[in-house]
Amino acid sequence: MQKSSIPSHTDIQTAHKKIVDAIHKTPVMTCSAINDITGASIFFKCENFQKAGAFKFRGAANAVFSLNEDDARKGVATHSSGNHAAALALAAKQRGIPAYIAMPNTAPQVKKKAVEGYGARITFCEPTVESREEALQKIIDETGATFIHAYNDYYIISGQGTAAKELVNEIENLDVIVAPVGGGGLLSGTAIWAKYAVPGIKVIGGEPEKADDAFRSLTTGVLQPAVPPATIADGLLMPLGNLTFSVIRKYVDRIITVNEGEIVSAMQLIWERMKIVVEPSSAVALAAVIRNKEEFENRRTGIILSGGNVDLKKLPF
Amino acid sequence: MQKSSIPSHTDIQTAHKKIVDAIHKTPVMTCSAINDITGASIFFKCENFQKAGAFKFRGAANAVFSLNEDDARKGVATHSSGNHAAALALAAKQRGIPAYIAMPNTAPQVKKKAVEGYGARITFCEPTVESREEALQKIIDETGATFIHAYNDYYIISGQGTAAKELVNEIENLDVIVAPVGGGGLLSGTAIWAKYAVPGIKVIGGEPEKADDAFRSLTTGVLQPAVPPATIADGLLMPLGNLTFSVIRKYVDRIITVNEGEIVSAMQLIWERMKIVVEPSSAVALAAVIRNKEEFENRRTGIILSGGNVDLKKLPF
Repeated sequence: MQKSSIPSHTDIQTAHKKIVDAIHKTPVMTCSAINDITGASIFFKCENFQKAGAFKFRGAANAVFSLNEDDARKGVATHSSGNHAAALALAAKQRGIPAYIAMPNTAPQVKKKAVEGYGARITFCEPTVESREEALQKIIDETGATFIHAYNDYYIISGQGTAAKELVNEIENLDVIVAPVGGGGLLSGTAIWAKYAVPGIKVIGGEPEKADDAFRSLTTGVLQPAVPPATIADGLLMPLGNLTFSVIRKYVDRIITVNEGEIVSAMQLIWERMKIVVEPSSAVALAAVIRNKEEFENRRTGIILSGGNVDLKKLPF
Repeated sequence: MQKSSIPSHTDIQTAHKKIVDAIHKTPVMTCSAINDITGASIFFKCENFQKAGAFKFRGAANAVFSLNEDDARKGVATHSSGNHAAALALAAKQRGIPAYIAMPNTAPQVKKKAVEGYGARITFCEPTVESREEALQKIIDETGATFIHAYNDYYIISGQGTAAKELVNEIENLDVIVAPVGGGGLLSGTAIWAKYAVPGIKVIGGEPEKADDAFRSLTTGVLQPAVPPATIADGLLMPLGNLTFSVIRKYVDRIITVNEGEIVSAMQLIWERMKIVVEPSSAVALAAVIRNKEEFENRRTGIILSGGNVDLKKLPF
């Protein structure tokens, strides 16, 4: 499953053909109130409506559907407490193969239930990197399952790029496209496709100040270690990988960082004015646009709303 | 503005032509998870995405756009603390005429801001029927503005019917259509159009047990007084009017009542699984389907999600 080169736009085309019948072609929404506030003309690609509630299903489906028969039979495995676990579980279910998830015992009940609901087998571990990796290795040793990394993976990146492909296909002449960046899978796929398909487009990542390793990596040109992240945007806690960093360094124009208050405000704006449920990570891209208003004024701006999985009992407003 | 006869489907056609460029043609959404839970095949008409956040804008726009020039110049007036006030204010703004709103001083800040944001002039009054009517009468005496009732109005009912018109036009062969019922404007318009356009369709109202005057009125055949309502579905507090009762008695097959817990559960289900923001009143129709599951099993069921205006700081879950 490991390929260490950078995917190209043809890989995204291949991915799209492979997953198109399995995914939702999510709608693109606009909101005149938010356009008034930002001065931009924003087109929101609503991956909160994607299967399993986030864009992650695109990459997971591509990775699972790309396995050869022998490998597929043994199943797939990952460690994740979040959207990748649910996405991988659902993709495996669709192909009829087992999924093994190493999940920290601190994961929210709602995430456990989602993963179990898709029929995956969960192994609980301590909420540390060491414990997660140990649990995962044990699963792989026992089952022969293929490890599917959440973002630093050729097929995952290619799959995530299909959201931007649908967006720029539906909305012509975008000036700029903004996606949140955590591990960098979504931003990588978005950048590869956008730079191929839309001449002159700018690709910008939105990142929480409190998890700003992508910003620091792009600024210094050297992959920076993550400092312990502490952002409400719980989908953006992971650091870039070597593969996503290579893509982002090549194709992404810049990263805009935003603080926690800006993330919550942008999230509230989306809920109140667009009447849709998005998770904090999704709001990071809009927060970046609001922070650097002048840069987006009168620009046709694509924003990828990454997901809608949020605990309704623990809202930040 | 007063017409005491029942609107017909041609009035809804006329209304649609009049307002079509002013309203959003809202999307119809489906949700496989909710279909699995209910056993029905549900098509949600998402009026939470309507301008001003609720179906109310359809009726208000039709009423405002139907005024003759002389009356229009003097403006429109109503008493409302809710979606009708915002809808009427926006419709008046679009026609460039004044809107006067008598609003109880207990109305949530967010509603006051919405109405003010559309440029309406608010007169605050005590939160009693007497005080509201007195304040309204004073406005009308002073300005000559036309009173636009929130639901017991020929043009309002005709406008509200355009949501069902769009729904049954987009989704063929519905077996049943369900709308929430408070004052009855939405249910009336829905019933008139559905019974005209879809042979054999059943039209059902969903109503909170704690505000069940429509259920009692339909059961007894006599318009029943409201007992003080106390439901979380704050869009459904008003009692039927004589006009909406006449329509509902003629065209609506039955009312299903639901308790407060069922409303909150259905609302949470919509937020969690569909990733959209709806107000409690919107959830009443789905709650009715879930309560009477057998009745809807394998049925192609249209549900009108009435609106999405909710205070995010006061959620019931």
